[in-house]
Amino acid sequence: MKFKSPPVNSLSLDFITELCISLEKLENNRECRGVILTSAVPNIFSSGLDITEMCGKSMEHYAEFWRAVQEMWLRLYGSNMVTVAAVNGSSPAGGCLIALSCDYRIMVQNPKFIIGLNEAQLGIVAPFWFKDTFVNTVGHRVAERSLQLGSLHSASEAHKFGLVDELVPEEKLQEKAAAIMAQWLALPDHARQLTKSMMRKAVLDRLVAHREEDIQNFVNFISKESIQKSLRMYMEMLKKKKS
Amino acid sequence: MKFKSPPVNSLSLDFITELCISLEKLENNRECRGVILTSAVPNIFSSGLDITEMCGKSMEHYAEFWRAVQEMWLRLYGSNMVTVAAVNGSSPAGGCLIALSCDYRIMVQNPKFIIGLNEAQLGIVAPFWFKDTFVNTVGHRVAERSLQLGSLHSASEAHKFGLVDELVPEEKLQEKAAAIMAQWLALPDHARQLTKSMMRKAVLDRLVAHREEDIQNFVNFISKESIQKSLRMYMEMLKKKKS
Amino acid sequence: MKFKSPPVNSLSLDFITELCISLEKLENNRECRGVILTSAVPNIFSSGLDITEMCGKSMEHYAEFWRAVQEMWLRLYGSNMVTVAAVNGSSPAGGCLIALSCDYRIMVQNPKFIIGLNEAQLGIVAPFWFKDTFVNTVGHRVAERSLQLGSLHSASEAHKFGLVDELVPEEKLQEKAAAIMAQWLALPDHARQLTKSMMRKAVLDRLVAHREEDIQNFVNFISKESIQKSLRMYMEMLKKKKS
Repeated sequence: MKFKSPPVNSLSLDFITELCISLEKLENNRECRGVILTSAVPNIFSSGLDITEMCGKSMEHYAEFWRAVQEMWLRLYGSNMVTVAAVNGSSPAGGCLIALSCDYRIMVQNPKFIIGLNEAQLGIVAPFWFKDTFVNTVGHRVAERSLQLGSLHSASEAHKFGLVDELVPEEKLQEKAAAIMAQWLALPDHARQLTKSMMRKAVLDRLVAHREEDIQNFVNFISKESIQKSLRMYMEMLKKKKS
Repeated sequence: MKFKSPPVNSLSLDFITELCISLEKLENNRECRGVILTSAVPNIFSSGLDITEMCGKSMEHYAEFWRAVQEMWLRLYGSNMVTVAAVNGSSPAGGCLIALSCDYRIMVQNPKFIIGLNEAQLGIVAPFWFKDTFVNTVGHRVAERSLQLGSLHSASEAHKFGLVDELVPEEKLQEKAAAIMAQWLALPDHARQLTKSMMRKAVLDRLVAHREEDIQNFVNFISKESIQKSLRMYMEMLKKKKS
Repeated sequence: MKFKSPPVNSLSLDFITELCISLEKLENNRECRGVILTSAVPNIFSSGLDITEMCGKSMEHYAEFWRAVQEMWLRLYGSNMVTVAAVNGSSPAGGCLIALSCDYRIMVQNPKFIIGLNEAQLGIVAPFWFKDTFVNTVGHRVAERSLQLGSLHSASEAHKFGLVDELVPEEKLQEKAAAIMAQWLALPDHARQLTKSMMRKAVLDRLVAHREEDIQNFVNFISKESIQKSLRMYMEMLKKKKS
């Protein structure tokens, strides 16, 4: 599956909805046992949640958007398929979450590509299920430090503490991803799926149990004037950067 | 304590029962403060649960067998003694669980010796308390990947991510195990035991609370025709390998 | 903030009470966003809880002392400020807890400086919230082994498994601590504080929920004749060492 939403594969409501529908179709397709997620946009895997969806919109819109983000994660982290992230570009915030939700992460070794949950730098807070997914991958201490600093890590650094499993040169990425997929698909589906579910169920169940509360939290937080202001400033900065 | 049940120290109902009785005796013997577990069979620490106990038997037998496996783990993981695994051979599945349940794991550095929870490769699923013990030792991410792939790791790899604590040449194993035992026995028993219990209690309590349910799960799962078939195929394969 | 309670910065009831008052003042001072903890006593960061407070005193005194120790940890681990430990000397037991409760730990690379939760060596048991703080920092396995052995680690060893984040030569310590503080203070306070609270809340809440029970446990344990005896012996040993 190739993300193609130029310029930066930002996770707009439309993009997320389409991703959820695609995942559901693949999940229900008995011929499909695995999916490789990668980007068709150069230098960017995904830039994360689309800030325009969180800025200057109605409370209803924020709620709808957040429910879609939750849905995406529930589908991806809880997928019965083998999921491999072939990270061929930078992957901040929600982009990093997508990678974290897969079974295996391969990243192109390019000093310009960065990855991490940098929400704190924007003045916002990663929700508890981003945090849980991160802790499950890199452990409590690395997550605590990285989340508080909103760190964006180079590919090498991310590999060193296990945020990505493997680094490859760009030209080897697809080949490597296919090899990893073949390795995981060699296992009997049923046993692999039950094992995956056993590992991830506690964290998935936690969001399911607190889903409405989490939406309410997000809506209340994001619609604060101080947060809206800091998001607007961030968007201005991005626009200036581009031009 | 030396496992001696040729050819491969497989954990039959008899073997497990005897192991539990021995552990209980040692536990109640105030002179005995620690135990080193090792194998008297060349190249094998323990090959894990005896598949013949799980294949073509009655529901009652499966239930009895599983209760014994639980008992073994409860006694070993919760032991008041210092427990050192001197892993002098391969140690898949239940053999790996025994090593994981000790306080310290020393493994012979031999490229032929492998260790891991490879249940998924047989089409079965390690129960939650195998998983909990594994996560407590190597962390969530390593456990997730290793359990899903049913990986059997070389001694070097196992050492790299903490599945074993130390590698030694075969001829140094007993000496090293004795030195480690002496180091742990230098601590006051009472404080060491309370500390151990504090670290392991949550995971031990979880099985105690769900013991009957876990037996029922095992019996239902293992008696499925599809699972029985895959176990029979696995046994055929082992027989062919031998001959 | 410089600890200055010669000869070894031991955490007496007076010292802890003063520390709590200072932390509260800083916490309520809106100008103060971070604090660096270090020692004004050569070669010792803090020697941990003052054993004289736990030896030959009344049950009421033990209870008062323990409540103060809890208070210190609740304030420090739950602080809204950025907390950096600049560990410029040895730091056993309660001294190690103070370092573990900060956001970041820098230690002077001196082969004579040691750090760890060595309670087991004194025949006592680190309480569950020392353990939780330790597990959150170094993971379950390292904590299990280190706590059972009551290990005091060299700075290098402590750095290797993440008990400290960074090693520096003594003359660079203050400069490095200031640089780390500046890095953490560059983040928006609100997002950083909420993130910190999200990471630490479960463990903080656990003590709050069991605070009286934990005091009772401590008082019962410490007032046992066998424990009193072993503490007296330990103090004798320390006195002999000094003279």
